Amino acid sequence: MNNRHHHTDPADAFARIDTERLARQGMPEFIYAESKTPEQVAAIMEKLIDQDGCALASRATPAHAQAAQARIASAHYDATSRLLSVGCLPDQPVGLAIVVAAGTSDLPIAEEACGVLTFLGDRVQRLYDVGIAGVHRLLAHVDTLNEADVLIVVAGMEGALPTLVGGLVAVPVIAVPTSVGYGAGFGGLAALLGMLNSCAAGITVVNIDNGLGAAAAAHRLLLRMRRAHSNDGRLGL
Amino acid sequence: MNNRHHHTDPADAFARIDTERLARQGMPEFIYAESKTPEQVAAIMEKLIDQDGCALASRATPAHAQAAQARIASAHYDATSRLLSVGCLPDQPVGLAIVVAAGTSDLPIAEEACGVLTFLGDRVQRLYDVGIAGVHRLLAHVDTLNEADVLIVVAGMEGALPTLVGGLVAVPVIAVPTSVGYGAGFGGLAALLGMLNSCAAGITVVNIDNGLGAAAAAHRLLLRMRRAHSNDGRLGL
Amino acid sequence: MNNRHHHTDPADAFARIDTERLARQGMPEFIYAESKTPEQVAAIMEKLIDQDGCALASRATPAHAQAAQARIASAHYDATSRLLSVGCLPDQPVGLAIVVAAGTSDLPIAEEACGVLTFLGDRVQRLYDVGIAGVHRLLAHVDTLNEADVLIVVAGMEGALPTLVGGLVAVPVIAVPTSVGYGAGFGGLAALLGMLNSCAAGITVVNIDNGLGAAAAAHRLLLRMRRAHSNDGRLGL
Amino acid sequence: MNNRHHHTDPADAFARIDTERLARQGMPEFIYAESKTPEQVAAIMEKLIDQDGCALASRATPAHAQAAQARIASAHYDATSRLLSVGCLPDQPVGLAIVVAAGTSDLPIAEEACGVLTFLGDRVQRLYDVGIAGVHRLLAHVDTLNEADVLIVVAGMEGALPTLVGGLVAVPVIAVPTSVGYGAGFGGLAALLGMLNSCAAGITVVNIDNGLGAAAAAHRLLLRMRRAHSNDGRLGL
Amino acid sequence: MNNRHHHTDPADAFARIDTERLARQGMPEFIYAESKTPEQVAAIMEKLIDQDGCALASRATPAHAQAAQARIASAHYDATSRLLSVGCLPDQPVGLAIVVAAGTSDLPIAEEACGVLTFLGDRVQRLYDVGIAGVHRLLAHVDTLNEADVLIVVAGMEGALPTLVGGLVAVPVIAVPTSVGYGAGFGGLAALLGMLNSCAAGITVVNIDNGLGAAAAAHRLLLRMRRAHSNDGRLGL
Amino acid sequence: MNNRHHHTDPADAFARIDTERLARQGMPEFIYAESKTPEQVAAIMEKLIDQDGCALASRATPAHAQAAQARIASAHYDATSRLLSVGCLPDQPVGLAIVVAAGTSDLPIAEEACGVLTFLGDRVQRLYDVGIAGVHRLLAHVDTLNEADVLIVVAGMEGALPTLVGGLVAVPVIAVPTSVGYGAGFGGLAALLGMLNSCAAGITVVNIDNGLGAAAAAHRLLLRMRRAHSNDGRLGL
Amino acid sequence: MNNRHHHTDPADAFARIDTERLARQGMPEFIYAESKTPEQVAAIMEKLIDQDGCALASRATPAHAQAAQARIASAHYDATSRLLSVGCLPDQPVGLAIVVAAGTSDLPIAEEACGVLTFLGDRVQRLYDVGIAGVHRLLAHVDTLNEADVLIVVAGMEGALPTLVGGLVAVPVIAVPTSVGYGAGFGGLAALLGMLNSCAAGITVVNIDNGLGAAAAAHRLLLRMRRAHSNDGRLGL
Amino acid sequence: MNNRHHHTDPADAFARIDTERLARQGMPEFIYAESKTPEQVAAIMEKLIDQDGCALASRATPAHAQAAQARIASAHYDATSRLLSVGCLPDQPVGLAIVVAAGTSDLPIAEEACGVLTFLGDRVQRLYDVGIAGVHRLLAHVDTLNEADVLIVVAGMEGALPTLVGGLVAVPVIAVPTSVGYGAGFGGLAALLGMLNSCAAGITVVNIDNGLGAAAAAHRLLLRMRRAHSNDGRLGL
Repeated sequence: MNNRHHHTDPADAFARIDTERLARQGMPEFIYAESKTPEQVAAIMEKLIDQDGCALASRATPAHAQAAQARIASAHYDATSRLLSVGCLPDQPVGLAIVVAAGTSDLPIAEEACGVLTFLGDRVQRLYDVGIAGVHRLLAHVDTLNEADVLIVVAGMEGALPTLVGGLVAVPVIAVPTSVGYGAGFGGLAALLGMLNSCAAGITVVNIDNGLGAAAAAHRLLLRMRRAHSNDGRLGL
Repeated sequence: MNNRHHHTDPADAFARIDTERLARQGMPEFIYAESKTPEQVAAIMEKLIDQDGCALASRATPAHAQAAQARIASAHYDATSRLLSVGCLPDQPVGLAIVVAAGTSDLPIAEEACGVLTFLGDRVQRLYDVGIAGVHRLLAHVDTLNEADVLIVVAGMEGALPTLVGGLVAVPVIAVPTSVGYGAGFGGLAALLGMLNSCAAGITVVNIDNGLGAAAAAHRLLLRMRRAHSNDGRLGL
Repeated sequence: MNNRHHHTDPADAFARIDTERLARQGMPEFIYAESKTPEQVAAIMEKLIDQDGCALASRATPAHAQAAQARIASAHYDATSRLLSVGCLPDQPVGLAIVVAAGTSDLPIAEEACGVLTFLGDRVQRLYDVGIAGVHRLLAHVDTLNEADVLIVVAGMEGALPTLVGGLVAVPVIAVPTSVGYGAGFGGLAALLGMLNSCAAGITVVNIDNGLGAAAAAHRLLLRMRRAHSNDGRLGL
Repeated sequence: MNNRHHHTDPADAFARIDTERLARQGMPEFIYAESKTPEQVAAIMEKLIDQDGCALASRATPAHAQAAQARIASAHYDATSRLLSVGCLPDQPVGLAIVVAAGTSDLPIAEEACGVLTFLGDRVQRLYDVGIAGVHRLLAHVDTLNEADVLIVVAGMEGALPTLVGGLVAVPVIAVPTSVGYGAGFGGLAALLGMLNSCAAGITVVNIDNGLGAAAAAHRLLLRMRRAHSNDGRLGL
Repeated sequence: MNNRHHHTDPADAFARIDTERLARQGMPEFIYAESKTPEQVAAIMEKLIDQDGCALASRATPAHAQAAQARIASAHYDATSRLLSVGCLPDQPVGLAIVVAAGTSDLPIAEEACGVLTFLGDRVQRLYDVGIAGVHRLLAHVDTLNEADVLIVVAGMEGALPTLVGGLVAVPVIAVPTSVGYGAGFGGLAALLGMLNSCAAGITVVNIDNGLGAAAAAHRLLLRMRRAHSNDGRLGL
Repeated sequence: MNNRHHHTDPADAFARIDTERLARQGMPEFIYAESKTPEQVAAIMEKLIDQDGCALASRATPAHAQAAQARIASAHYDATSRLLSVGCLPDQPVGLAIVVAAGTSDLPIAEEACGVLTFLGDRVQRLYDVGIAGVHRLLAHVDTLNEADVLIVVAGMEGALPTLVGGLVAVPVIAVPTSVGYGAGFGGLAALLGMLNSCAAGITVVNIDNGLGAAAAAHRLLLRMRRAHSNDGRLGL
Repeated sequence: MNNRHHHTDPADAFARIDTERLARQGMPEFIYAESKTPEQVAAIMEKLIDQDGCALASRATPAHAQAAQARIASAHYDATSRLLSVGCLPDQPVGLAIVVAAGTSDLPIAEEACGVLTFLGDRVQRLYDVGIAGVHRLLAHVDTLNEADVLIVVAGMEGALPTLVGGLVAVPVIAVPTSVGYGAGFGGLAALLGMLNSCAAGITVVNIDNGLGAAAAAHRLLLRMRRAHSNDGRLGL
Repeated sequence: MNNRHHHTDPADAFARIDTERLARQGMPEFIYAESKTPEQVAAIMEKLIDQDGCALASRATPAHAQAAQARIASAHYDATSRLLSVGCLPDQPVGLAIVVAAGTSDLPIAEEACGVLTFLGDRVQRLYDVGIAGVHRLLAHVDTLNEADVLIVVAGMEGALPTLVGGLVAVPVIAVPTSVGYGAGFGGLAALLGMLNSCAAGITVVNIDNGLGAAAAAHRLLLRMRRAHSNDGRLGL
């Protein structure tokens, strides 16, 4: 009877790596560390490096980082963005993403977006602490905003910043609500709903605190832009 | 047994008028018409006129208006604001309320606020269609905003306008979310949450579509302002 | 006293047209017809035509259409998408948007997206009725999907289609949840949450039933793509 | 007066064991450990063993395990599934359940389902890490899926996997949403709603993170299948 | 320019019939009539009849029925269940589904389940008006319940009936919450949550008012039961 | 095949009357008319009269009333409370219920409570329009409140009245939230939550707009009071 | 300037004891310990003892208990119910409350109700672990239930037990939802909604986990019963 | 490659101080400490002091206080209100704010409001523990309430206190819901909804637990009052 007790399979068994994701999507599979043990994250990372030459885990804790660094010397951990990475994709000269953030509290999510873009080889600039309560801080930077090929706009509280930005420029805007706030902010729900109901036409939205998703969406867009830039229809992977 | 069936009491019975509300609050009792029959609204109106010399019903339908006008020749109905009124309080020279509205769709609620203020004798100005998607429309009016003693800011969709206004001036801002929008606007919930979580300090909020409540709050403030203005501590009712 | 009753201002007063939106955003101001009277919609349309040479109202009813057509002979109304339009922007040869829809019930929203893109001069293709319950229907079209510069993916119920599409190709995906469904669909909330929590990285989302918003977001992207295509940094408006 | 203070009754008093549940339902009463003290869990376990010869507690912590093992030497604890068990029901040769899981993060819930099925004597296979973001991983296993008599499909995030599975095969599908995710996942609500609104007809759903409930439902189904298999109408308990 | 206005495609274009669903799933594609025009429903029905020899539309209105009957003489409409059908699958002698309903108000949903099962060729019995407020009404029928191979239990209000049934017998229970109720019933949400949190182990749940989904789930189960019954591993389609 | 179409059973079949409810509960089964057809309501009424000599349907429309009156001449309909009744239980001299209502808009629900109590033979008094905005209106009636054996307190909007009443007297308070209000009242949810979180200890609550439920709860209490009054332990049915 | 920093007032200042609550309500003010510091709880307790001769704090932690016991030697703490008490009201021979609980996990809340009743001098019996999943456990106790003057029924999960009880007997039922459960239980919301929507007429409900509130409501009822019992109209305080 | 890792910018970079907020708004920028590191809070504080001569951080922990005090000797921390401050604005003789609180549990939020007003130079009085369950406690202070120029009313649970206050006096009322409560209080949601739906006209509301926001709103009002008082139209900053 005792032999009926299930022993959790070794690392090979639980993770079925999507081996062609990089070719198919222009980016490798990312590891979502939050619900995984340090050992699971480290094991999946090794597999992905074997396959793609690089790997990135989001929402990693110091414990995840330690487990990875014990196996992979070059593993790098950034405590602000909670990104744990090994290697990266080659630099891309075409296309610029600008990450705009409302306040200092939104920094971890904004930095997650920046870190993922950097990992993917995309050019990124930061424009932080330009919240709507002091609107002149943003208005001084409209020319900068217009230089971008895509804007990632990060805000918590009432989440109005993407609406303001979207009304000022014609650049694609990817809005990232953050869970910064309290009470009737409901963990970012207020910001999320605000962005979904934006009166500025053409704002798109990702999940609360999903800096990685915003970066991935921007990367999809930049890939297409490079194909257009090359004028020959080939995908600029 | 049949005599046990309850016959709804005559008009005198169902409405217990709050006879001293005008003296106590600086404004008479308002009639919320939405859940009342035309006959009930007309009967309560007559009672209030007897007592206060004027009466106001909100969210009145044309049927409510007809029932009232059949009894009270001077009853006036405004289809946009859905206000049904008889008489009004005397004009007050001190204090200015400005009602700011984001878009044409918010007009019924903004007009409800204006109509109630007018009924209460307060001075009111309108500044409409200055939504955040074209922020320069509002920026051109900052001097006007600064002239107000109180601002009522009406917006639906993401409800960001009060935050923008509150960041530009030091005037008290009463934010009114409207149910304008669809989908994840959830009947005004997105705008309400946005206003409650405003990153501009000192914005206060009333219920969704509650133009009347915003006007009553502004009136409370203007009453206090008049007391201060008279420099002798008497309440300027 | 009677002269204190407010008479709603003439059409000039309630709508403060954003006169430079076309130049600033690469698209004119759209009219949200749902909370406006037929007369208001027709009046705003005339103003916008004077300024931009074209105008588009969404969520228009036949009554809105009639009021507009009484003033503007060339006003065109499409009952499926509920779009009411006069004129359009010039055709753009560069850039392709494909609108993917899960089922016949999602057609009105998908057609809204198509209609807005067409109005803005963008090239658009349709790929309808490829819902996830019969996954082979979509798998047969992966090559087509890869030709697009941007995909608008429309789905109700559980809203899983954008996740499937996003996992198959590297193209930018704008997901549009629809209110198709019942019970615990909560008017599109289930589809919205599903899209926001997609396990396919880089999906962005717009409001429930917001075909127009998805089209505007795609247009922002295509504008940037044209600038990249022209290789000289000028915005391809 | 002091003797009025209530002293919590001994273990016999608080737990009224349902002595015929095994005969009536084909499975014994399970112990939900989460809101119980270690002592309560251990005491109830002993009672159940006396009666049924085996016992199973779900959502047990190491503290629960320790208390049980102090009394019952053969108590077995699995940290991944959080199942604490003593003994099991006899093996059943007829009927196969396959547990399908979207990602490594869903493993604890998938393992709870597997562990309960094993305890109940049912045959179970695992098919893990076949999430919808790389749909080819699942498509390679359609034949395996078709061998099952019942499928338990475990997924968090947007919860689309059961819909995909349900569209590929005719096998009964019991969908288990997990709380894996963040932000607008709302602790598994997004996955739950997605599964309830599945466009694949005939998917049934259990509570968020309820691997045990899915296993019990599968067991009910396998009991009926055995009765059919025996061709004589007797319940295959 | 005018030729750019999109004319909705003919019926062939909008509906991409899933031609092998009957073979793959043991049931044809169902038509969800609620968000479709009468013409769309009738056109899709004709297509499905050509392919499968039968067709079923749920949530059909009399207008849908009229449009279908104008094209297909044998189309049958049941006003209680709102099912519109043409033909059906062959009768199956093995396997019995019993549909249990709490009250008269739940009849439309219970009848939807019965109608779909009948259409699919499954044997079905009804046991109605056995709500929990008078528990003896149900207790008198435990033997009947035990004869079933699968139970569909339909209840609104607090939705406790499936819990009671699930505690009495070992038969698989598919719970269907209905929107019967008011106030804090929130359109069936109370019943849905009650069923998902049932303290009777092994209850599975479908969407609110989803009689069709419950029937399809029962049909999946009966298909498997027939395969077991035939003792040769072939799917009893 | 056609004979497989289900024809809804005659009235005898769909309603399984709970024949001993009056003896068991001290009140007969009530008919919830809202989700039933006029014919169903009339048929169930006849059955109940045969058994109990009286019958009561709540939330009845004029159409329900007409169908009942066509069969039962003595059927009585009250349009305010929407109660449809035939006969009643004998008058009870012991015990007094007072129904307190906040405003005229809450009258239909308050009257439903009064009508049900009257039907059950209980003594009932009304105290209406004593909302909290003019607290002196209620304070004038504290002696009256203290005469009651049970208080049913009906309020919409913020639902604060039961809290105020519960803090003034020691009488049992059954709070009834109504759906009166708009916006963030969410159909009575605000009032419901307010009553559930009352800072006055010992307030109990029923569903939104559930005047009948409050009356039934009061009746249960009065039954017990009569047993106590008779001093001999017999249930005062 | 430093003198402007506010120093929190001494204990006398922050708590304005309601000195006549015992006379007015038949029970003293209770102390809600959860949001108060140990020092605040101890100080308020001393004040209440001075006035009423007894005091009771709910949701007290061991830290609260220690602070109280340091000042008041006779302070008694029960870890299961988290009640901290000093003294109690005199025993009442008339009237019986029975506390019914669904499972062992609901014990802390059931014990809170029992402890408060005991403190108030009311007679109380316990009937635990009679959950609906094994309905025969409750059916064996119907005679006991009928002896009660009031029933407090405590249940988590789907919260169906009060509905079952309410359908079996005519006794007043006060339902207490508990937060026992997980996932779509939403911290007791499922049980709360289930109880509010009970199909058994006349069930009343208190807040989630509010054993104290249920006891206070039962006490209000027993007070009235004693007045009836004494046959002379005096309140049996 | 390693040089691509982003190193979080020094303190100068992440915080873009709004240098003219004091002049524009009559109050400096406040620091929301909750999502910031102790170092970030201390650095921003230093910047604000350089500019405005004073600084205030809300929701500060002892760790924030320590970091600030290490750099700024005069930094003052109040553990009850969690305010961390350096310096303050000059005292203002005109205008009085009274902070009213329902219970001892609401003290931290009430004290946050008082502390912010004191920091801004406004006169403030406290009136605590006057909850609605003992209404006479408040009625004894109506004259005091009438002396105020603005009332901040803080309450948790059902949040009825602002409604009661607003019905007694004509003074502006800013309602602050607190998260005090449990179960269906939903972290302050019940109190928030209660306040938004107040039947007392003219109550305005801020976010749950937002004592700071209420103080800022009161300050905006007092600024306007001073302008009125000075009779010369100059803003009394």
